[in-house]
Amino acid sequence: MRVAVVGASGYTGLELLRILLRHPEFEIVAVTSEQRAGRPVGEAFPSLRGRLDLSFEPANAAALAGRFDLAFTALPHAASAPTVQALRVAGVQVVDLSADFRLRDLTTYAKWYTDHAAPELLGEAVYGLPEVYREALRGASLVAAPGCYPTGTLLPLLPLLREGLVEHVGIHVDAKSGVSGAGRKLADGYLFAELDGNCMAYKVGYAHRHAPEIEQEARVAAGGEVRVTFVPHLLPTVRGIATSVFVRPRPGAEAPAARAALEAAYGDETFVRVLPEGETPTLQAVRGTNFCDVGLAADERNDTWVLLSTLDNLGKGASGQAVQCANLLAGFDETLGLLEVAANP
Amino acid sequence: MRVAVVGASGYTGLELLRILLRHPEFEIVAVTSEQRAGRPVGEAFPSLRGRLDLSFEPANAAALAGRFDLAFTALPHAASAPTVQALRVAGVQVVDLSADFRLRDLTTYAKWYTDHAAPELLGEAVYGLPEVYREALRGASLVAAPGCYPTGTLLPLLPLLREGLVEHVGIHVDAKSGVSGAGRKLADGYLFAELDGNCMAYKVGYAHRHAPEIEQEARVAAGGEVRVTFVPHLLPTVRGIATSVFVRPRPGAEAPAARAALEAAYGDETFVRVLPEGETPTLQAVRGTNFCDVGLAADERNDTWVLLSTLDNLGKGASGQAVQCANLLAGFDETLGLLEVAANP
Amino acid sequence: MRVAVVGASGYTGLELLRILLRHPEFEIVAVTSEQRAGRPVGEAFPSLRGRLDLSFEPANAAALAGRFDLAFTALPHAASAPTVQALRVAGVQVVDLSADFRLRDLTTYAKWYTDHAAPELLGEAVYGLPEVYREALRGASLVAAPGCYPTGTLLPLLPLLREGLVEHVGIHVDAKSGVSGAGRKLADGYLFAELDGNCMAYKVGYAHRHAPEIEQEARVAAGGEVRVTFVPHLLPTVRGIATSVFVRPRPGAEAPAARAALEAAYGDETFVRVLPEGETPTLQAVRGTNFCDVGLAADERNDTWVLLSTLDNLGKGASGQAVQCANLLAGFDETLGLLEVAANP
Amino acid sequence: MRVAVVGASGYTGLELLRILLRHPEFEIVAVTSEQRAGRPVGEAFPSLRGRLDLSFEPANAAALAGRFDLAFTALPHAASAPTVQALRVAGVQVVDLSADFRLRDLTTYAKWYTDHAAPELLGEAVYGLPEVYREALRGASLVAAPGCYPTGTLLPLLPLLREGLVEHVGIHVDAKSGVSGAGRKLADGYLFAELDGNCMAYKVGYAHRHAPEIEQEARVAAGGEVRVTFVPHLLPTVRGIATSVFVRPRPGAEAPAARAALEAAYGDETFVRVLPEGETPTLQAVRGTNFCDVGLAADERNDTWVLLSTLDNLGKGASGQAVQCANLLAGFDETLGLLEVAANP
Repeated sequence: MRVAVVGASGYTGLELLRILLRHPEFEIVAVTSEQRAGRPVGEAFPSLRGRLDLSFEPANAAALAGRFDLAFTALPHAASAPTVQALRVAGVQVVDLSADFRLRDLTTYAKWYTDHAAPELLGEAVYGLPEVYREALRGASLVAAPGCYPTGTLLPLLPLLREGLVEHVGIHVDAKSGVSGAGRKLADGYLFAELDGNCMAYKVGYAHRHAPEIEQEARVAAGGEVRVTFVPHLLPTVRGIATSVFVRPRPGAEAPAARAALEAAYGDETFVRVLPEGETPTLQAVRGTNFCDVGLAADERNDTWVLLSTLDNLGKGASGQAVQCANLLAGFDETLGLLEVAANP
Repeated sequence: MRVAVVGASGYTGLELLRILLRHPEFEIVAVTSEQRAGRPVGEAFPSLRGRLDLSFEPANAAALAGRFDLAFTALPHAASAPTVQALRVAGVQVVDLSADFRLRDLTTYAKWYTDHAAPELLGEAVYGLPEVYREALRGASLVAAPGCYPTGTLLPLLPLLREGLVEHVGIHVDAKSGVSGAGRKLADGYLFAELDGNCMAYKVGYAHRHAPEIEQEARVAAGGEVRVTFVPHLLPTVRGIATSVFVRPRPGAEAPAARAALEAAYGDETFVRVLPEGETPTLQAVRGTNFCDVGLAADERNDTWVLLSTLDNLGKGASGQAVQCANLLAGFDETLGLLEVAANP
Repeated sequence: MRVAVVGASGYTGLELLRILLRHPEFEIVAVTSEQRAGRPVGEAFPSLRGRLDLSFEPANAAALAGRFDLAFTALPHAASAPTVQALRVAGVQVVDLSADFRLRDLTTYAKWYTDHAAPELLGEAVYGLPEVYREALRGASLVAAPGCYPTGTLLPLLPLLREGLVEHVGIHVDAKSGVSGAGRKLADGYLFAELDGNCMAYKVGYAHRHAPEIEQEARVAAGGEVRVTFVPHLLPTVRGIATSVFVRPRPGAEAPAARAALEAAYGDETFVRVLPEGETPTLQAVRGTNFCDVGLAADERNDTWVLLSTLDNLGKGASGQAVQCANLLAGFDETLGLLEVAANP
Repeated sequence: MRVAVVGASGYTGLELLRILLRHPEFEIVAVTSEQRAGRPVGEAFPSLRGRLDLSFEPANAAALAGRFDLAFTALPHAASAPTVQALRVAGVQVVDLSADFRLRDLTTYAKWYTDHAAPELLGEAVYGLPEVYREALRGASLVAAPGCYPTGTLLPLLPLLREGLVEHVGIHVDAKSGVSGAGRKLADGYLFAELDGNCMAYKVGYAHRHAPEIEQEARVAAGGEVRVTFVPHLLPTVRGIATSVFVRPRPGAEAPAARAALEAAYGDETFVRVLPEGETPTLQAVRGTNFCDVGLAADERNDTWVLLSTLDNLGKGASGQAVQCANLLAGFDETLGLLEVAANP
């Protein structure tokens, strides 16, 4: 099956190329980049030298038409919507890695991002969390791949909300992300000399764009309002998000029921691994992969459960999950190309 | 004033040497290390070559007697108490960096550590948080330098508890520490190849020894029981702790009052810097120093305030704070030797 | 084809598992580890949870007999030889990752390592550098996988020696290695707190065990004595070796001839990529892969050429190259399981 | 003594502030930055909050006149010369950290940099290597602080050239630098996500601007032409340069004479520490300091000596050395403010 990566020179785009090159069914036939248009991929990105014999081209809808059946769009938010629109008009299935189709409510999107350029497509988009929306994804033509922070927060949290085990308000999320989550952004704060040995919170409380995305999906699971205070951090690592979710059990709910809910939700899943009691997830075990490891610890004294998760922000948090969704769209085995284990050490 | 560092070859011991070498009033006259006894300091630790012309000696009370007026003890818990006892018998003032004199309750100490070897000294020990116990420290002869995690948690939290602004239960602390916090520990998990690019929670809930220490001091400030769920993490950095404290305001309490409480508590303090609204503390700004930077953000929607702090676990979290206490004991200006700013980058 | 990894819990062993799990023809049927015998692999190493349903077993020759056709031995030097011997007696093909069969001369081995436990096998062993010994490897039953430093030094150097373009003495090699090259070694110097931000040379001159291995293979190519001064460094990275080789051109030899020799040697090779003039190899482009990138720069003013290479010490420098050799032994396409590109970023 | 830091918001400027704040005699009275003019220093750089009560001002000669006696200029090359000129006209002593006054030959400067804006000052400038030019520095009014790479190469190399122990051609230098050496440069290659775990050579051979600077000073010591092939690398660290210098002994010269030459040159120096035989210098031991550690190893088999050095590129490689020079200009003890030891770990 012929696929394109539109916006292939950013970090999620490069990770898509890396995964697709090992995928037995998807064949990369076009890669676009405005800034690097005309340059051979292997010259711009030496890791791909000898492995991908294509040159970047501009994202010209006419020139691309008819050359592939499915496209991954890895463009900045707002820039993505019109490109997705053109691709959909051309009949191409799209897995979009931007934020443009994640928020179902236009007003919310406008508040956190900007006016939407393709509102008519919102109804068509399926939120690309296969462990939650698998059936809808099988028949979808447009997928909104979830944000990296929302994936790490929602995977452990949703089963407990769904089972009515935890309070809907007073949820506290403390997340730590590797810097590749910000993309290839040229700003002082992302320089090696500023980040090495550093760590800091940013956009604390309800200030990060992923916060309303988390609440949107939490509401669906809870069947009502949910309130999440969200504290993201920058870690001195390239990849990986470690998330702590502090929740309060509802009266009568006990920790074994929480563990049972996680195991029921993910016992048959390939990519979500619920760790045994007493173990905590690590970035090391998921780096470079499509896995999300999940742990649970209870502090009964303080009426608090702590959910922990780790994932690779470019893997299960972006490009890996996008390929998982594409496998569903294409009718393939959902795990194709995604079973790589982490390089340890 | 002549001082000794007992247990000078661990990480807090080395940091004491580094600070004391720039201190205008303390003169290092003895350094002990069982494992390196007999070796010149500058040979065992090349950073000190040419700067400290002493050899390590064993911690032999008789041999040490009468050579100094104040000792810093930087030994493992349980090993420290008998050494401190011998030093006190010899009339030496002691700043102890172990956990042996931090917990005022013997049963609690026994539960989290072991049976206490010098219980008779507990009453004499002052908890070495100068911003809280300054007057007691001025007249003290034995100081229990606080743990690194407790320092980072208590400095932002105590003023709010003291002013009655926040609930005493349901406090959630998420802390991230550089690996030097574990000391020079030879275990797989502390190898560079295991930690680089890694991050993980450990001893989650109420399982870390610093948790009861945090609650002990929080109780004093609150005037009653306090419950803290504590989630420590290992960061892929050498130094620094970044802490998030999630608290719920009491009915009627508003965020400006919280900020005012922090500013009232620390406005005249040299080493605790309350950041302006909208700024978040970084490890970079405090690395290698005795500063603790403190920030506050409110999420009114979710009835939650987030307190943030950063410090250097070997600085304000251990050896810097120990020297700050020693300055008080000796009647010096509290800031002597401690005004160094962080190397940035 | 059924294979075993003997000594699977060290760093080269784990990397073998990672590669073999994606290999379409090799099936891992046994993994041994004395220290972890009895433990499920996925419990001891969480990255493998859910991906390899085996438990470690002790390396008991009788218990292993007849269960597989090919074994990778990833044991410490000296410990490897007797195990290899037992496997060979049982008719198993062996790719050995230790140093035990790399040096052809028993006296040299004894001088740098210890007395050899299986000298009768030395004649059978083929040095596992497929770009040099491909034909011999196709028919081999015992492969001595090269050291990581020798691979990075020899690949750029051998073609120039073979073509008679450079002097045989006065060769200077400056190599920088990620710390995983030392294996999972519990020593102060490998702790994160000691290595982060650090870099240092060690075993300088002709003191590292890989130096005689480099000279052995250089002699074969040069047809005479070769002298190499070798300066290895530890880098604050987990994986990767960057090598500079300073050589002096023979009278009349010119830089284009050197470039031509490299291109002739590697133009048809998948895993050695000769970079265009003006580009320098990076660790990033080869990390996690079986590639070795090679560059060349000339300083005619000083009668010096600089050869540069990068590789992953656990990839082309150990486990990747071992699988490349095993593919040859088994008659498979040499690149099977090895075409993964580096995760960038 | 009142001093200014002109160009105080770059990395060498910030390091100057850090050192000057602990200096007992220099008082910072003005700090300039075009980009941050008007902003309080402690707001722009949180590490300085509460420690330096100044705001950045533009580098306006008229506004600065008469306010200080000595200025450190830490501006980009070419931008520095006219500023230095204006300061000299105003009678201010200047320690210049740019490259503008390092090369004595105008043609060489023009070739590697650009046309010189203040050639009339070249004769006045003294090369700021106190271990070589101490006497000239005492009476100087303009100092050209050496480049970081030249400092690390020249300190071990010059004594051997001076004593006639080594050949003048065929010198090979392999240097590895932390990324702060490039300054606060916004380019893809300096992003954390690109550099972490990475290492690469750049400007190989005789292509880096520090190469002619090295040869200039080597010529002075050797009394004739010297040829150095120079291979700089970027390390995944913030600070520090580790240098290997491969030299060939002249006929009859023996390793003990080389060691003796180093010890004679530096035995009385505070900041150059010659390590005992068998030890190698580390970045860790010099990070954050004004020390340069030097080691020597011989490979007699290959007629090669290896000189090794480490220093902090912002310390002895830039701002530390600049303050050491300023101490000489001002007639102070040369070590004032510079005796800090490295934070280890």
